[in-house]
Amino acid sequence: MERRFFKRKSLQQESKELGFGATDARQKRLLNTDGTYNYKRKGLPFYRTFNIFHFLITAHWIRLWIVIILWYSLVNFVFVGLYYAVGTEGLSGMVYQTQLEKFGEVYFFSAQTLTTVGYGRLNPIGFWASAIASFEALVGLMSFAIITGILYARFAKAPTVLIFSKNAVVAPFTWQGQEVTGLMFRIANAYNTSLMNMKAQITASILDCDTLDASGQPIRRFLSLGLERETITFFPSSWTVVHPIDENSPFYGMTREDFKKAMPELMILMSGFDETFDQNVFIRYSYSIDEIEWGAKFVKIFAFDTEGQATVDLGSLDTFEKREIDSLIPISDA
Amino acid sequence: MERRFFKRKSLQQESKELGFGATDARQKRLLNTDGTYNYKRKGLPFYRTFNIFHFLITAHWIRLWIVIILWYSLVNFVFVGLYYAVGTEGLSGMVYQTQLEKFGEVYFFSAQTLTTVGYGRLNPIGFWASAIASFEALVGLMSFAIITGILYARFAKAPTVLIFSKNAVVAPFTWQGQEVTGLMFRIANAYNTSLMNMKAQITASILDCDTLDASGQPIRRFLSLGLERETITFFPSSWTVVHPIDENSPFYGMTREDFKKAMPELMILMSGFDETFDQNVFIRYSYSIDEIEWGAKFVKIFAFDTEGQATVDLGSLDTFEKREIDSLIPISDA
Amino acid sequence: MERRFFKRKSLQQESKELGFGATDARQKRLLNTDGTYNYKRKGLPFYRTFNIFHFLITAHWIRLWIVIILWYSLVNFVFVGLYYAVGTEGLSGMVYQTQLEKFGEVYFFSAQTLTTVGYGRLNPIGFWASAIASFEALVGLMSFAIITGILYARFAKAPTVLIFSKNAVVAPFTWQGQEVTGLMFRIANAYNTSLMNMKAQITASILDCDTLDASGQPIRRFLSLGLERETITFFPSSWTVVHPIDENSPFYGMTREDFKKAMPELMILMSGFDETFDQNVFIRYSYSIDEIEWGAKFVKIFAFDTEGQATVDLGSLDTFEKREIDSLIPISDA
Amino acid sequence: MERRFFKRKSLQQESKELGFGATDARQKRLLNTDGTYNYKRKGLPFYRTFNIFHFLITAHWIRLWIVIILWYSLVNFVFVGLYYAVGTEGLSGMVYQTQLEKFGEVYFFSAQTLTTVGYGRLNPIGFWASAIASFEALVGLMSFAIITGILYARFAKAPTVLIFSKNAVVAPFTWQGQEVTGLMFRIANAYNTSLMNMKAQITASILDCDTLDASGQPIRRFLSLGLERETITFFPSSWTVVHPIDENSPFYGMTREDFKKAMPELMILMSGFDETFDQNVFIRYSYSIDEIEWGAKFVKIFAFDTEGQATVDLGSLDTFEKREIDSLIPISDA
Repeated sequence: MERRFFKRKSLQQESKELGFGATDARQKRLLNTDGTYNYKRKGLPFYRTFNIFHFLITAHWIRLWIVIILWYSLVNFVFVGLYYAVGTEGLSGMVYQTQLEKFGEVYFFSAQTLTTVGYGRLNPIGFWASAIASFEALVGLMSFAIITGILYARFAKAPTVLIFSKNAVVAPFTWQGQEVTGLMFRIANAYNTSLMNMKAQITASILDCDTLDASGQPIRRFLSLGLERETITFFPSSWTVVHPIDENSPFYGMTREDFKKAMPELMILMSGFDETFDQNVFIRYSYSIDEIEWGAKFVKIFAFDTEGQATVDLGSLDTFEKREIDSLIPISDA
Repeated sequence: MERRFFKRKSLQQESKELGFGATDARQKRLLNTDGTYNYKRKGLPFYRTFNIFHFLITAHWIRLWIVIILWYSLVNFVFVGLYYAVGTEGLSGMVYQTQLEKFGEVYFFSAQTLTTVGYGRLNPIGFWASAIASFEALVGLMSFAIITGILYARFAKAPTVLIFSKNAVVAPFTWQGQEVTGLMFRIANAYNTSLMNMKAQITASILDCDTLDASGQPIRRFLSLGLERETITFFPSSWTVVHPIDENSPFYGMTREDFKKAMPELMILMSGFDETFDQNVFIRYSYSIDEIEWGAKFVKIFAFDTEGQATVDLGSLDTFEKREIDSLIPISDA
Repeated sequence: MERRFFKRKSLQQESKELGFGATDARQKRLLNTDGTYNYKRKGLPFYRTFNIFHFLITAHWIRLWIVIILWYSLVNFVFVGLYYAVGTEGLSGMVYQTQLEKFGEVYFFSAQTLTTVGYGRLNPIGFWASAIASFEALVGLMSFAIITGILYARFAKAPTVLIFSKNAVVAPFTWQGQEVTGLMFRIANAYNTSLMNMKAQITASILDCDTLDASGQPIRRFLSLGLERETITFFPSSWTVVHPIDENSPFYGMTREDFKKAMPELMILMSGFDETFDQNVFIRYSYSIDEIEWGAKFVKIFAFDTEGQATVDLGSLDTFEKREIDSLIPISDA
Repeated sequence: MERRFFKRKSLQQESKELGFGATDARQKRLLNTDGTYNYKRKGLPFYRTFNIFHFLITAHWIRLWIVIILWYSLVNFVFVGLYYAVGTEGLSGMVYQTQLEKFGEVYFFSAQTLTTVGYGRLNPIGFWASAIASFEALVGLMSFAIITGILYARFAKAPTVLIFSKNAVVAPFTWQGQEVTGLMFRIANAYNTSLMNMKAQITASILDCDTLDASGQPIRRFLSLGLERETITFFPSSWTVVHPIDENSPFYGMTREDFKKAMPELMILMSGFDETFDQNVFIRYSYSIDEIEWGAKFVKIFAFDTEGQATVDLGSLDTFEKREIDSLIPISDA
């Protein structure tokens, strides 16, 4: 194979970002569109990989709520056991008639103590029952302090939602006064919050059809893609991130068929600062080959109405029009 | 039109900051002086643009207070419904005489449980009423944990108030030993807090009268303006931010009439670090053409009194004196 | 005056750090050793410079405690007024005999409601008293949520205590294999906490005896001083910050008398990251001419004992020995 | 000694990182593998080095729990004293028969007030008892506000656990197309959390056998080691940090015996950003000479299974195979 499958010059940007170098071709998508990594970890026992606070902060609200209810019941049962152990005659005000009702009253006394609601019909009158109750109230306050912290940690996290255009497109665009071809996608801030100092980074995972491994498969390389503009200071609404396909690009000179054979996956990291939550935000996204449209241009979503009012139409973020392009190399360069 | 309307060299700083390139001329101010963007968003359904925590953290105090009261009433009504459902005979201590009074007592019992005040005259005696009450106390504690977090998130945000001079001015100043002309404005820290590492960035939106669009209107360009000094480490009180009008400036060579025709809007981003709140702060501001004074110089606001005590007079932050200037180009250069 | 008072080359580092350029000589120290600025602000009404949260976060603990007690009393008095307004017969369980005792009981009922302690001997039985009480409990929870937040914001701030050596010294030291003279001071971390990525910046305020103002006084200039090393990654215990007096230094070539006439004030900003509190920390300090020792060298405070155990003696941080130096210029250069 | 023990060129990276320059040879390990520094501090009185909040945030959970219980008991005892001081007849509802039981009831009344549980059987009826109780409830709320803050500050800290390979290895590797030798170690993220923008820094502490101190011992130098790659953006699972032994390395040209005589200690600082906790994280680690394996290569831990699923086996993080290497200098260079 004499022809070089892609620009070797671009190999200088070869990346070990994901902890592996060139690998074989059979792999699935590495980064899911929700930003999680598509790989399995093994070799560590569960207790080394599990952190209770991390779980409580990241678990779904329903799971958290279940954990809290289970904990609440459990602590109550433990204290019920203690009250029985020191003798329930230490509690005054009980009106039960059956043993089950008695258990219920002790349980509810415990709950009233743990939550510090303390109505007082049920109240501790013996020494040990009083001592346990005063300890239970302390445990209750500590527990709710922890829960307050966990709830705060959860919603103090900026709920940044960047909307990515459904497709990335390979399209002509004007750059430094010339018509060139670019690989581009579009993002928008779903919320009305202020994101500042947005930064884009793209690592492409590409099959190198020139280099075969022991089993005759093309190897997969990880290359950083240069961008027309890496950061923007203001980010009021939308941004089109563009990788210009110039001689530094691994895609330079490819035809549509080359591009398909290369099976590129674009792994994207957007970072920025959320002003409302005073927080750095990171968003990962990925476009696989099926989501990259060859020969297409995004429609404009920014316009001024007749009164000069700027308007952005996020409903058209995904919309593009087909454009004919032949090969990712200028004719003069061929 | 042979003459170049503004320095093409400065086009290298052309910016896509606001998500659009060169646009048409009819637009209104893009950035309001309170830092919000002047544009409309459409195309996304409400539920995708609304985040409840974001609302609770940024809403006006009065709105937040209304939301809390409504929630408090609502939760109480829900639990009143539950107590009625399991039978109000499960509550002891009621003294009502009418059905309305009964409802009131159940409601207030619910409120006393939710807030964990639990006086105890009203108290749950039946199994189901006790169970609901113990759950309500848990709901109350969770709710107040969330509210604690929201209140903390609100006032943990640094209340940075930078005061901007009412006008930007175009004035002569001494720079690197030469008399040049500069475009400048002045800021001060209203509070007695410590801001560190302040950084200024200016993007100018300028009409390019050399380049007309399809409808014969000059297009609008977005250009970064170079600054005499971009950052200051200490910021005890005030700072004059200066854009020197040298050959890299888009305004270089303009007359007063050119300047007015160009209709510049200065979009400013100040950033820094608030020591008290341990927080990055960002402040946006904008000067439109009406707020830029041609030929004016700020009066000094820093002085030493007879005992050598440094004094800054923030009351004169806006004050300037008129100075005659002709054109933004040195004679030797014409 | 033919001789240049100090190296003009160093004027390129002239700084507008403190918001003023060259000023007159009569001024006092600009930065106090506790890091506060020594200047007066005027011209803004009080309400624009006062922020209640800023006050609550930075006030002395005793002041904060007084504010909380005053608020607690005030809110109670307001609600006492409301209970009287709707009629105190709405409260059951009172045992008063005099009007004053009655007032006391209403007040304590209010306090028991606001803190949600709700013993229940005193409890609301009428509709309006119950309604007010349920609102007061809500107000109480809100208030304590705010206080929780304020207390957290206070002690979440890293209590970084850098100890600065009592004096800065002008001393010979070895730099890049040569004997040169340096202006240096020493810092240590008082606490056993981890500070990382410490950075030092020095701005010197120096009288320029070559340049006189209208009243014949030398003007004061603000110059950045270059450092042998600006940042250190690890900061386990102590660091000697050194400004080498080479040809870029404003002090280059000065005699002891020149140095005294120049009346330098060293304004220092140390910044770093506190690992325990996950926070950026900034510490300002200043050495005035009286605190700079000409011809002195710090004693070593780091040693290894006979078992090879590294030991740092912070008790000797301030200790120096006298060393004879003549002028801040190498002989070969004179 | 004509031969230079190690590359003098590398002395340009000589570091004063740890607050001392070249020192004598007898020292122990400077950095422990848990990231703490191995040195003693003296010369400061205890009260200057102790910060109560720092203690409460960093102390072991058991110690914190003991401190809280002691505080709880102490505050209760103080208020018991106050109730006795104003006369216990101000408390109603007591049922004691002995003085000890009386003390118990007053104590439990205090606990019920401090925790705001307020059952109400015991309740204040006299003026002074009521006043003290209303103050105690305020103290209780304040205290639990502080404890809430401390607990939050504790678990809001990212529990980052980087696993370091048990050994660092000196092994051949391919770099920029050539076979060279490298000093390398491997890290992995134990938890399933997202770390971003990881950065590695290595300072080596090495004996310089060419330079002897007054007592004839080789001195110890601190040198920064260059890295093949200093930062990685994504860090899904593992990273091999490599110091290439080229002509800039202090180890360049060493034989195995030289290396042993040099007794290198690798002091490592890893930093990064924890997305879940929105926090900068710093991890220090150290390899002493006994933990550096000469002539060894890590086994691959990343693989794709037959379905193309990427898998990382953290159980083999420490595993290496022996490789023969002679000297850390290419033959062509000798």
